Amino acid sequence: MSDIDRIRAQQLMQEADIDALVLFQPEAFRYTVGAAAGVATMWGRAGSVIALVPADAGAGLAAAVSDHAAPLVRKAAPDIDLRCHRIWIDMVDLSGTEAIGQVDDAYRRHNAGGPRPETFDRTACFGLLADLLQERGLSGARIGADLEFMPAADFLALRQALPDVNWIDGSAVLRRLRAVKSEREIGLLRRAAAAAEAGLVAMAAAVRPGAALGGLSAAWKAGVQAHAMKSGFSLSGHWDYISVGPALSDMAAVVTPGALIKADVGTLVDGYSSDGARTFSWGPVSPLASDIFKALEAAFACGLEALRPGNSFGAVHAAMLASMRKDGFSEYYRGHFGHSVGGGVGIEEWPFFSHDNAEIILPDMVVALEAPFYGEGLGALMIEDQFLVTSSGVECMNSLPRTLRDLSLE
Amino acid sequence: MSDIDRIRAQQLMQEADIDALVLFQPEAFRYTVGAAAGVATMWGRAGSVIALVPADAGAGLAAAVSDHAAPLVRKAAPDIDLRCHRIWIDMVDLSGTEAIGQVDDAYRRHNAGGPRPETFDRTACFGLLADLLQERGLSGARIGADLEFMPAADFLALRQALPDVNWIDGSAVLRRLRAVKSEREIGLLRRAAAAAEAGLVAMAAAVRPGAALGGLSAAWKAGVQAHAMKSGFSLSGHWDYISVGPALSDMAAVVTPGALIKADVGTLVDGYSSDGARTFSWGPVSPLASDIFKALEAAFACGLEALRPGNSFGAVHAAMLASMRKDGFSEYYRGHFGHSVGGGVGIEEWPFFSHDNAEIILPDMVVALEAPFYGEGLGALMIEDQFLVTSSGVECMNSLPRTLRDLSLE
Repeated sequence: MSDIDRIRAQQLMQEADIDALVLFQPEAFRYTVGAAAGVATMWGRAGSVIALVPADAGAGLAAAVSDHAAPLVRKAAPDIDLRCHRIWIDMVDLSGTEAIGQVDDAYRRHNAGGPRPETFDRTACFGLLADLLQERGLSGARIGADLEFMPAADFLALRQALPDVNWIDGSAVLRRLRAVKSEREIGLLRRAAAAAEAGLVAMAAAVRPGAALGGLSAAWKAGVQAHAMKSGFSLSGHWDYISVGPALSDMAAVVTPGALIKADVGTLVDGYSSDGARTFSWGPVSPLASDIFKALEAAFACGLEALRPGNSFGAVHAAMLASMRKDGFSEYYRGHFGHSVGGGVGIEEWPFFSHDNAEIILPDMVVALEAPFYGEGLGALMIEDQFLVTSSGVECMNSLPRTLRDLSLE
Repeated sequence: MSDIDRIRAQQLMQEADIDALVLFQPEAFRYTVGAAAGVATMWGRAGSVIALVPADAGAGLAAAVSDHAAPLVRKAAPDIDLRCHRIWIDMVDLSGTEAIGQVDDAYRRHNAGGPRPETFDRTACFGLLADLLQERGLSGARIGADLEFMPAADFLALRQALPDVNWIDGSAVLRRLRAVKSEREIGLLRRAAAAAEAGLVAMAAAVRPGAALGGLSAAWKAGVQAHAMKSGFSLSGHWDYISVGPALSDMAAVVTPGALIKADVGTLVDGYSSDGARTFSWGPVSPLASDIFKALEAAFACGLEALRPGNSFGAVHAAMLASMRKDGFSEYYRGHFGHSVGGGVGIEEWPFFSHDNAEIILPDMVVALEAPFYGEGLGALMIEDQFLVTSSGVECMNSLPRTLRDLSLE
């Protein structure tokens, strides 16, 4: 199922004065078409898959994929106008075939045999796009492509293959479209956040004096996987930035009494990554660490107060920075205090809670709000939670307390 | 430590008539500089890291990185001429600081405080490159950039920022350079192959009637992780394409007597992926499957015979396809029968064993040779091994027998 809101896409394209989006990034293909883009995307190049989104919300979606990926795309997205090009993988339907002598006939029956390109045929795929644009009357249109993804070498070839198109960078339209999530996407991000948090519970249980950073990371991963298995879903990935003690990049650190333990973690479900963080210790932390954490708690509370639909992303940044300044940190700065999550290639997605960012917070956005402090010689401290923006406010997707937890007391 | 062979780089750049390579891809940065590119590369954009490789092998390497990544880069690569730009993450050295009132001074002491960009500052990073090029007398030079990676939107900005440079696509030079591996890279690929093969041993032990595909995948992963832990290294990733039985995309399939079990798997060590495959069954397979496997074995042997330094990649493709044709497969085709491994973003790397590919097989290349057959309604069959090309031939990095193993007999 496509995650695209065609009405909003039409509005955004009208505002940007473009007639269609033509998307080459595998993640954008998945988002638009509702099916995996297939193995020919492994090189990060453009031209193994293409998704076409006309600005006119009444005009159907179209796509080009490999013959290898096509059967699963057709099954997942029967309504998409789908065109195929051949890739390097040879596959033949041998149902009913019993002997070598009949294999050639099976190839011929499905037009599956004969020469194939070394990997994928970019020229053939661009040709399918040219056909689609011509059929839709878009051959000379203003078309937004995802030029923040498309390699320059491929864009050069695209312009040569389709010289009459007026190519525009459609990245901003795509980003703005993807920042508001579908129900399916919200569900994936909810699952991912829950798995990551289950990992934090398991990690906290493994904290004791002498516990190694690597062991805490392993405990987090085990907790994550156990949660996913118990809940009946699988993870497409996971990541953890854990620090223990005063040396921020010491991967061999072990827990000592009073050392700061910061875990900034996420799991991926169907490519959608969660993002969240907590800070722990074993025994009381230093007065400086305690004071810094209090300032982060106050900044987080100010950010959360500003985090509501209709407000700007910049207002959240301003509120949090002002709180830090009020608490005596004149030089502390963050380029952003959080970001959208899910939908692209990075853990952190546009828009960001950054200085002067006029982008408006909208219902059905999913964002991570974060208040971090990295003190070499002291340790890292961080509070981060993931929120769904609702029509009237926000709903937190995490449930662990945001305090600096002294685990020796539990 | 850099993996780059500066003498060969000089030769390749002279042949391509370029004065320097300027590389933006994080993997290319890691390869050139010998240190991780850092977190600001998460968006797949160009301009958070840059590596400069002058054609003149006597001229030193240079690089631009974030202030966040710089300490680790300096430690790993003290000889690189390194320039820094600020990213969104604020970090301060608080060694000796005990109270909130001293924190501002700590920021000022290391020039760590004050405004930071929302994410990274592409303009600032391109400015560092402009400085480097000017200092090296390369401001108006012919420079090869990795345009098969660099997003078109970033290339446009680069050309505006450095208008006097004559930008050329340096991707082919980079690919050719990376296809020949350093000792370190060969070691990583050896480890990765050994871990993947240990996983296959564990998976084979889990095969029995009724065993589910998901269970075999889990057994493979467990075997892989156990091997890595026992051998004292960690994996940066893993992937498995396992198929069980006649329906190639049935992820819920279970083992039945005579069903084909194909496992095409790899693990990643420090970003370098292995690639290998074996075929198993529980009980005797159908005569057709047996005959197809015999043809794959013969094709693999022909490919292996042609796989030697000085021969072309195309000669291997020709030998394997001719073997299939001789055995009665007139329509069977593969775009490639294998490829280089390690070093880029895909599992499969250029060059490929593809039709008419004149690229020459060289010592210290690491390649995967593969003979696959995908028969919907029958099952998948595959033989694939990873080889180091030596000065006189090849050395296999795998040790499991290449036969179609009936595990009910073991």
